[in-house]
Amino acid sequence: MRKIIMLEQDTLPSPEFTQSDSRISALLDHLRQIADLQALGAIAEWDQNTAMPGGAAEVRGFQVAALQGVLHEQWTNPQLGNLLSELHEPIQRSSFTDADRGLVREAQRFQHRATKLPRKLVEELARVQATSFEAWRSAREHSDFARFAPMLNRTITLYREVADHLGFTETRYDALLNQYEPGMTSSKLDKLFAPVRETSRSLLQRIEASGTTIDASYLNGTFPLVQQLTVCEHLLRNMGYDFSRGQMAQSPHPFTTSFGSPFDVRLTVRTLENFLQASLMAAIHEGGHAVYEQGISPSLVRTLLASGASAGAHESQSRLWENAIGRSEPYWQSQFTVVKEAFPAQFAHIDLTSFVRALNKVRPSLIRVEADEVTYNLHIIVRYELEKALVNGNIAVETLPGLWNAKYREYLGIEPTNDAEGVLQDIHWSFGFGYFPTYTLGNLYSAQIFHKLHAVFPDFDQRLASGDTAFALQWLRDHMYIYGATYLPETLIEHITNETPDPQHFTRYLNSKFEKIYGLPATS
Amino acid sequence: MRKIIMLEQDTLPSPEFTQSDSRISALLDHLRQIADLQALGAIAEWDQNTAMPGGAAEVRGFQVAALQGVLHEQWTNPQLGNLLSELHEPIQRSSFTDADRGLVREAQRFQHRATKLPRKLVEELARVQATSFEAWRSAREHSDFARFAPMLNRTITLYREVADHLGFTETRYDALLNQYEPGMTSSKLDKLFAPVRETSRSLLQRIEASGTTIDASYLNGTFPLVQQLTVCEHLLRNMGYDFSRGQMAQSPHPFTTSFGSPFDVRLTVRTLENFLQASLMAAIHEGGHAVYEQGISPSLVRTLLASGASAGAHESQSRLWENAIGRSEPYWQSQFTVVKEAFPAQFAHIDLTSFVRALNKVRPSLIRVEADEVTYNLHIIVRYELEKALVNGNIAVETLPGLWNAKYREYLGIEPTNDAEGVLQDIHWSFGFGYFPTYTLGNLYSAQIFHKLHAVFPDFDQRLASGDTAFALQWLRDHMYIYGATYLPETLIEHITNETPDPQHFTRYLNSKFEKIYGLPATS
Repeated sequence: MRKIIMLEQDTLPSPEFTQSDSRISALLDHLRQIADLQALGAIAEWDQNTAMPGGAAEVRGFQVAALQGVLHEQWTNPQLGNLLSELHEPIQRSSFTDADRGLVREAQRFQHRATKLPRKLVEELARVQATSFEAWRSAREHSDFARFAPMLNRTITLYREVADHLGFTETRYDALLNQYEPGMTSSKLDKLFAPVRETSRSLLQRIEASGTTIDASYLNGTFPLVQQLTVCEHLLRNMGYDFSRGQMAQSPHPFTTSFGSPFDVRLTVRTLENFLQASLMAAIHEGGHAVYEQGISPSLVRTLLASGASAGAHESQSRLWENAIGRSEPYWQSQFTVVKEAFPAQFAHIDLTSFVRALNKVRPSLIRVEADEVTYNLHIIVRYELEKALVNGNIAVETLPGLWNAKYREYLGIEPTNDAEGVLQDIHWSFGFGYFPTYTLGNLYSAQIFHKLHAVFPDFDQRLASGDTAFALQWLRDHMYIYGATYLPETLIEHITNETPDPQHFTRYLNSKFEKIYGLPATS
Repeated sequence: MRKIIMLEQDTLPSPEFTQSDSRISALLDHLRQIADLQALGAIAEWDQNTAMPGGAAEVRGFQVAALQGVLHEQWTNPQLGNLLSELHEPIQRSSFTDADRGLVREAQRFQHRATKLPRKLVEELARVQATSFEAWRSAREHSDFARFAPMLNRTITLYREVADHLGFTETRYDALLNQYEPGMTSSKLDKLFAPVRETSRSLLQRIEASGTTIDASYLNGTFPLVQQLTVCEHLLRNMGYDFSRGQMAQSPHPFTTSFGSPFDVRLTVRTLENFLQASLMAAIHEGGHAVYEQGISPSLVRTLLASGASAGAHESQSRLWENAIGRSEPYWQSQFTVVKEAFPAQFAHIDLTSFVRALNKVRPSLIRVEADEVTYNLHIIVRYELEKALVNGNIAVETLPGLWNAKYREYLGIEPTNDAEGVLQDIHWSFGFGYFPTYTLGNLYSAQIFHKLHAVFPDFDQRLASGDTAFALQWLRDHMYIYGATYLPETLIEHITNETPDPQHFTRYLNSKFEKIYGLPATS
């Protein structure tokens, strides 16, 4: 493996800050203080989602708000502003490192946001988000979009103001998108997503026309939670998740968080007694996020760079591990025995190929979080197209349920019968806009990196089948994880794969995988 | 019960802050911000003890230090100083409430500490504590005091500096003691403790000379942890601990903490598969701390007064519930069935009286947390005498294991064979000094309050035997818990019991209880 890595001709330096420059030292002092305080907020959030008693909700709200206030003061501290102005020009000189440049870039981005947004707007947003969340919950409970519409309207109005304060060149939506995916624009996204939409729709139609059905019924049943957690833990260990710098807990919505990467990176899974797939795939998915964070260079600890390069870059790793690796036959060749040992009765007569086919069963559904790889991006593209139009003022909130249903009919061939299983299913719009497309971006980056991994390791599948994931993790660490947020996501993807982001990797991956599974004639 | 409470002629008003005074409002704004941030530190500490992976220790140290830094700024804010100066004199006027006065008193105490201690020292302490905790854990694991000694030395040096900055009249140790027990000095403690040490030693000798032995062997065995936790939860519910404002977790050293009393008060227990008593008595003990915090008036929430009056006052409640109530026959008359149902095989042939006798078996042991009521305070007095000598510079760290063992031989007649069961058994010295004596102080206060409870409720034992603890909890809430830290501990004890702290209540309680259990001739 080492030999192959040597042949790769790494051109990026390992991420180190300049020790000798007093401005960099002063900036680091300031930003480390901020990172340490932010970590305390993340600990409180972890606690809120995994342990906090219900009676503590109100008092916890005050605690989190107090920390936000302190952080706002830190970001708007004039000393920090002066330091960043002083460094703005010289930082491009070759005497500074890439990590120095990344640090200044990220600090400017956060400081820009903190100083440009009026405090009143931020406070109003927080209030509206809380009310909006309640309105969304009640609307979903009653399956009645009209209950949510006024708050959604208000949220859109406020985020249009946010976009105006932050600034943008093409569309307002881009300003919001940039919070999660620096450097991305909707015109770039439109180009990246078009082939994904077309390939997904046509592949889905071909699968449905083939008449082939997959039996996945044995993934439903009774699976005691203790055994599920044991399997999750095993899978996480196998993929290199380090429990001495992490922990697995349970929560209603699985998530990964960090309180100082790479030294404390935790994840949660959701266990459902009657549906095994929920916990196993959540473990691998969150494990992907987590090994990314655990692989960040310790030299970046306690800075803004000790995090993923973007939401899309992060999602590329959860998807790479969950889908490209975790739903492949080579992977389960070594791991299926763990599942069989945990649930001997359920899987006694199921062979490996059937199990993997079941994990990959394609079935257009109305619910995004239950979607397979073929239909998943169609769910995202529906949301992306609609939220972009909402923020840019091209459609009215009142028309949303009708447009949602029409797009589902057009893209997935099915249509919600009520708002709860339609436009109201996701929590996201009660908080903001611009996050959804990073899911599909993650899938595109994932396929491109997966393609590269196969090129670097021609025996990738054989190694995986033997139970070895360490070689892949090591390569990903060396070429991606170690840099944290040193580089903008597109630069990073280019470094890893030696090409610009290209959706053809994903469409080829999708066609090739599902043509094989469903016995379809190859497209190319 | 209500009638009896009416007859009690409550003279203290319920704790409310003055709404109409702008200085009190401004002070509350400032102190609530501080309380909210402190709660985030407590959440981080809870996490550190119940969940945090070992690899995160160093980075966590920085996070806690960053928060300390922010809190230090808040405490040393000149606006706060001015407010406190402005209020210093007028606060004594009758137009202000006791809560107002308590708030100003506690704020002054913390502000004094913050302004007197240099920021560098505070930050260094936080860092050293995090590292010292890991050193202690590793030293205990390897039963090797030498691994802990350097960090202990460093901690002592730093705390001697702390004492010098805080100031003291008699000894350095008093300055540290006062952090936990405002108004207490080691010369007062020496007087309070002398009769306790003498009574404990002489009672122990009389018990050993009596030749009476109690069979407690059935408390050892195999007790599956899940059932132990179920019993703990039941006992906690029975004593009025509210799980909707709390949580029970596990940690190597049981503790109770709060992130905004009375709304989020959590506790941990330690479970040992082969020793039932460890978890049950920890649950009742920590439950005592927790019902105290949960009983604090909601009007005090998010202030310095939403906490116990002192460590000693706090311990008085854990001891009252654990020992005076939780090791009494009337208590187990209603609760023993829960234990029998959880472990039917082990307790099928054990009657109530034998079970209670087993819980009260006196046996000099090396481990403080497993000690009986007769020997417990001897464990504390060993620690008190040693830490006082350490801080006052009368002994060197290196001599500690030898001195520890010698005192055990002298007071308890037994001697540790290794450091893990000797000087390394407690976590406390990895954090600081001055806390240990509050345990024995708690026992003294507890006996005094228990004496009062029996005077108020002549049918105390009968009620307890019927499974009722609510009457006692209600009385304790109304006369003690509700006030939080409004009053200094000695004032509070006087209010509750109508007399000053007096160790004779405890020595009488001890003699009377154990003379009965061991069939000894009465001393008085």
